Amino acid sequence: MKKHNFSAGPCILPQEVLQKASEAVLNFNNDNLSLIEISHRSKPFVNVMENARSLALELLGLEGKGYKALFLQGGASTQFLATAYNLLDTKAAYLNTGTWSTKAIKEAKLFGDIVEVASSKDKNFTYIPKEYSIPSDADYFHCTSNNTIFGTQIKHFPETNVPVVCDMSSDIFSRQLDFSKFDLIYAGAQKNMGPAGTTLVVVKEEILGKVNRTIPSMLDYKVHIGKDSMFNTPAVFPVYVSMLTLEWLKNLGGIAAIEKINEQKSALLYNEIDRNPLFNGIVATEDRSHMNATFTLTNEALTDTFNTMWNDAGINGLNGHRSVGGYRASMYNALSLESVQVLVDVLQELERKA
Amino acid sequence: MKKHNFSAGPCILPQEVLQKASEAVLNFNNDNLSLIEISHRSKPFVNVMENARSLALELLGLEGKGYKALFLQGGASTQFLATAYNLLDTKAAYLNTGTWSTKAIKEAKLFGDIVEVASSKDKNFTYIPKEYSIPSDADYFHCTSNNTIFGTQIKHFPETNVPVVCDMSSDIFSRQLDFSKFDLIYAGAQKNMGPAGTTLVVVKEEILGKVNRTIPSMLDYKVHIGKDSMFNTPAVFPVYVSMLTLEWLKNLGGIAAIEKINEQKSALLYNEIDRNPLFNGIVATEDRSHMNATFTLTNEALTDTFNTMWNDAGINGLNGHRSVGGYRASMYNALSLESVQVLVDVLQELERKA
Repeated sequence: MKKHNFSAGPCILPQEVLQKASEAVLNFNNDNLSLIEISHRSKPFVNVMENARSLALELLGLEGKGYKALFLQGGASTQFLATAYNLLDTKAAYLNTGTWSTKAIKEAKLFGDIVEVASSKDKNFTYIPKEYSIPSDADYFHCTSNNTIFGTQIKHFPETNVPVVCDMSSDIFSRQLDFSKFDLIYAGAQKNMGPAGTTLVVVKEEILGKVNRTIPSMLDYKVHIGKDSMFNTPAVFPVYVSMLTLEWLKNLGGIAAIEKINEQKSALLYNEIDRNPLFNGIVATEDRSHMNATFTLTNEALTDTFNTMWNDAGINGLNGHRSVGGYRASMYNALSLESVQVLVDVLQELERKA
Repeated sequence: MKKHNFSAGPCILPQEVLQKASEAVLNFNNDNLSLIEISHRSKPFVNVMENARSLALELLGLEGKGYKALFLQGGASTQFLATAYNLLDTKAAYLNTGTWSTKAIKEAKLFGDIVEVASSKDKNFTYIPKEYSIPSDADYFHCTSNNTIFGTQIKHFPETNVPVVCDMSSDIFSRQLDFSKFDLIYAGAQKNMGPAGTTLVVVKEEILGKVNRTIPSMLDYKVHIGKDSMFNTPAVFPVYVSMLTLEWLKNLGGIAAIEKINEQKSALLYNEIDRNPLFNGIVATEDRSHMNATFTLTNEALTDTFNTMWNDAGINGLNGHRSVGGYRASMYNALSLESVQVLVDVLQELERKA
């Protein structure tokens, strides 16, 4: 039975990517060797890394604009620390829109003063704060573009004179933005880019080298840039699968093409949530994420019936995050409109049955 | 044509492991979902992580002895930093046996005084220093059990009253040791354990929590222990393949069984290097690694002939590290005695031809 995978991450990847990845584990590059048993310094893998790095910049429209792309290890959680280690000299400004922002703030506090410019904690992070000012003497401004757990997404980024650092883990490559307005973007691969185990960092080189501390090599962006993202053995398989996924996106027409599909998918689901009296959206309508739609049943007595129905329809990963409850439909790039239709059909069937 | 993979790392893995890993990328656990598109919090993956952690302790004989096993990201290079962050309060003792020890020392120096108790740099790291004393007031003693690049291996570890920290990246699970004499062992997976992208840390809990600094969460062993090695999304595929490889080793008879095979393999090759007048071993005989055998041609004019011959025999990855030159035959756990025989045959054929 076909599965409709709404997992929040690690999440669905394109079927053709999974097919190629599976083959590469047995025989990569027609060399009769597995991708995972060859030297990362061999030409075939160096090509993979270079291809992945240039595809990332190309898709973001950042080629030739002073940016470097790195594929590092440790997840966005390590970037909470690395961004501060590299950029925080005295003071930085953070927007707090949920769990991940809160964690980023906690790690950054080890390295300097943190000004929380605004927070939506007062309403359990169900909206994006909009009226706030960023101190012009901050070393940088940090925000989280999409809140995977609560299902909110920043639609308009603030104008500021300080460097902008953005955790785009759960919506990178999903929508068109002027990415040149960001000075450092990071994203764990395991949503729109690939499997868990590698993290994309895209950094404008000119913002580096300005702090007064010695940075450990593995956390120093300049060290990784100087070694073309091969300072030490990279996560070979996750980087390869990320490259395949970025190639898939490019062949599809890039971010402009996937954005249209993503808007169709989220419109289809949110329209049904709003129409169907059995369901309520959790977050402020204007701040709804195109990636993660969170909702609840208006009548909790229907919980078991609903759960059985979506399970029977082959739907996977619909439970809300353990800290929020309810339901969460994650509609990342590789999820088809057809899968969203299957979910919408289940919502309508519940209405007929109830 | 069958390949004989002598790569230094990432390196050969058991064929049955590659087969299972390839299948899991398409359909894991018979759920019609890929291993790399399911939640790391789902029961099937939590089982993988727990199984990998307990297999590591079981194979090392460390179950029930106060140790915890973690599968982290960032390679041994991140552990150079993390060990010092967690354990170095004022002073630590390091044995310098090559490139990796040197790098470990460099990172640790950011956190306290480093006493280099001995170094083999005077002879380009071609031997293991033996006469040295470890200050009894050091926070810990750090050493590198096997030097992948030069091909040396510590055969006898020093007795000391301070905690012993060991980078076993390139010979873990390859030979019997009293692992309970070590307080912290770390190892990048990509030699004897799995693909690049995960790092095993085995730590005796009682040595933690003794330094006077706040440790960033991602570098704090206590944080990872408290979250059962799932503080953030782990490197799912590398952890799974590591679990498969540890299962393979257990089924084979564990470290005791593989040690015998590894000794046969290295004896076969070193005996030929010593017998054949066309080859010289690079390092001191008593310190030769059972994992990485380094050697040179006595007559450089034979280089092209020899290179063509081993390439034609299906041998892969025999070039020495770029910093050493010559040849390096890495004979990790998954390499068969048959492959070593193929290499020995080539050495003998060159002698007949020359």
